Amino acid sequence: MHYKHIISYVLNRFRLLLWGLVCLSGIVLAQPPRGPLVVSPQVNADKTVTFRYLAPAAKEVRLSAQFEKAPVPMTKGDQGIWSVTVGPVKPDIYPYSFQVDGVTVMDPANVAFFPNERFKASLVDVPGDTPLVHAMRNVPHGSVNYEYYPALEGTTGSLLVYTPPGYDQNPTKKYPVFYLISGTTDTEETFFKVGRTNLILDNLIAEGKTKPMIIIMPYGNIAARVVEQKGGTKPADPTVRDGADAVKRANDFATDLVSHVIPYVEKSYRTLNNRDNRAIGGFSRGGGQTLRTAFGNMDKFAWVCSYSSYLSPTEMDKSFPQIGSNADNTNKQLKLLWVSVGSDDFLYKGTVEFMDYLKARKVSYKSLITDGGHTWMNVKKYVAETTPLLFQ
Amino acid sequence: MHYKHIISYVLNRFRLLLWGLVCLSGIVLAQPPRGPLVVSPQVNADKTVTFRYLAPAAKEVRLSAQFEKAPVPMTKGDQGIWSVTVGPVKPDIYPYSFQVDGVTVMDPANVAFFPNERFKASLVDVPGDTPLVHAMRNVPHGSVNYEYYPALEGTTGSLLVYTPPGYDQNPTKKYPVFYLISGTTDTEETFFKVGRTNLILDNLIAEGKTKPMIIIMPYGNIAARVVEQKGGTKPADPTVRDGADAVKRANDFATDLVSHVIPYVEKSYRTLNNRDNRAIGGFSRGGGQTLRTAFGNMDKFAWVCSYSSYLSPTEMDKSFPQIGSNADNTNKQLKLLWVSVGSDDFLYKGTVEFMDYLKARKVSYKSLITDGGHTWMNVKKYVAETTPLLFQ
Repeated sequence: MHYKHIISYVLNRFRLLLWGLVCLSGIVLAQPPRGPLVVSPQVNADKTVTFRYLAPAAKEVRLSAQFEKAPVPMTKGDQGIWSVTVGPVKPDIYPYSFQVDGVTVMDPANVAFFPNERFKASLVDVPGDTPLVHAMRNVPHGSVNYEYYPALEGTTGSLLVYTPPGYDQNPTKKYPVFYLISGTTDTEETFFKVGRTNLILDNLIAEGKTKPMIIIMPYGNIAARVVEQKGGTKPADPTVRDGADAVKRANDFATDLVSHVIPYVEKSYRTLNNRDNRAIGGFSRGGGQTLRTAFGNMDKFAWVCSYSSYLSPTEMDKSFPQIGSNADNTNKQLKLLWVSVGSDDFLYKGTVEFMDYLKARKVSYKSLITDGGHTWMNVKKYVAETTPLLFQ
Repeated sequence: MHYKHIISYVLNRFRLLLWGLVCLSGIVLAQPPRGPLVVSPQVNADKTVTFRYLAPAAKEVRLSAQFEKAPVPMTKGDQGIWSVTVGPVKPDIYPYSFQVDGVTVMDPANVAFFPNERFKASLVDVPGDTPLVHAMRNVPHGSVNYEYYPALEGTTGSLLVYTPPGYDQNPTKKYPVFYLISGTTDTEETFFKVGRTNLILDNLIAEGKTKPMIIIMPYGNIAARVVEQKGGTKPADPTVRDGADAVKRANDFATDLVSHVIPYVEKSYRTLNNRDNRAIGGFSRGGGQTLRTAFGNMDKFAWVCSYSSYLSPTEMDKSFPQIGSNADNTNKQLKLLWVSVGSDDFLYKGTVEFMDYLKARKVSYKSLITDGGHTWMNVKKYVAETTPLLFQ
């Protein structure tokens, strides 16, 4: 036996001995030991990050992280724990996963994860020297509520509700509402777990930059939920359907939001119930749903935020001609039309065309072009930039 | 090219064409297509379940599910999608994962997951012919709130709060509170996401079997959180520490619960603030924490539920001698002392010893021995059996 194996063997025997002692001591544990404790990710003081993954039998393990351009090879060490230290990494929250002999896995040692219908990724939080806008700080915190509501076609829908700090302590105060929709294959949890929308709002409200508001995070894939609960053929991949079906799905979403979500929210929470106190925003597909829902229901929303998304000039002319043809009226009605995108986003070109379309027709809008791509690092930025503008 | 490869090639080209059309139609999507849509798990009408996993390059894929005694080989099919149909499966919610060339992965196609610090698993829900006690039914629903509170040593703690249906509609009504603690390596989300405690309560309350109550789900691993936020050495694996450290951790938990969680909850929610209206329960390590916290704070809790856990006779005599030596007083104080365990649970023997200890000293308790092991299928049963007894 190699000496490392001997050490490992002794450690493991010792582990079982300790386990026996622990049981005898009257402390009750969930399961017998499952191998060595793996600490991952470990963010170091110099902003480098050490990732570790236990895989004694693997031939190749690589780190795939959104702050790296390509997967980074990891090295096998004691007890079959693979590791790599990368960076320094620019402070932010990044999705990552491991490629283990070509298989993509989340980090089993990390509870922070990316809720999604199609892929599994973990999250690493590299803190700034001064706290970033999404950092957990010692300020009053709002809460995030998981709710069920009576949804489209007799189904039960689910959504998350952020209530701002003080909501429960001021039982007569009413609040404006921001409806915030995540992207394709995201779930209603993504703006909470990945976007940290609650902490961003807690911080901005504490600094007096953002008005206290309620934020509603609905689930974007209404069609899938209807089939799940009512039976029928599972909808084909939303990313590969033809235009007509995709438009129908977007319209179903708008109907559910206007006819089911809003009435439920306004019955269940202390809300200000008029267009001046309703905002809508979304990322990617959720941005498309935002623009369609807002332009199709101009009596409902006065504040509109499109993050990394657009409607094409053709679609604008076909479905929402009044937006561009009567810009005076549009500008009177919309207190904010926000469009932002990253310069490396694969939707950059379409988004710029959308802005050009608005500009040519003298529709007022605010825009922000950031570095980076179609990422939740950018979404957090957009939320932090736009929420101070709402309801002011 | 084999004909299957030709079909796959054509399908993929077609996918890209459709993707182009979708973009042109003005529908905005999160990302370019990521390969074929995989539907998994698919629960069939006859209670068989089909699992699928996309892995064109894998050599061996197996299903590891808590309703199977051993991993089940899966078969590679079109487009590199591995699949297997198993069952019929007894209706319940089961954790499962895939073993892909020896690597454990969650099901990427499934958003239902098991929150845990050490492993990653997905969840499959096999419905009953009549709805099971944890089923989503058309009854009034409570909500689950994610909250932050000022915790031990100046840290920020997190917990989940179930408020029953009608909580927001009756602004003067006050409720009893059940503190419910999950097991080793579980998180504060496990009783919600795996235990479906909210839906069990919604159903039992709708049937008039259980009193409306608030349920608090704290995080059990307080020591780890303190180190995370305050710095210092990451605690060693809680499953391999010696008895004294484990007792210290349990005591830290009790201190945090009594000195921080309870005051926060009673300030933030409409609670009935006396021992007759406080219950405490937990699974596995959470059951051990329950017994220690309750026996160490007899002025705080009158209802105590230990699920698959125990304190040893030695520990009882050493730390809580008054429980057994003055059974009359114990019986007067505790309106319920519940102990349950599965007959295949690896903690079965210790739990029976604990019951024998209580019996020999004439301490009253209710017990339930179920089939099965140290599983969340059993935990759901115990929650459904005990919550109707509380506060009655």
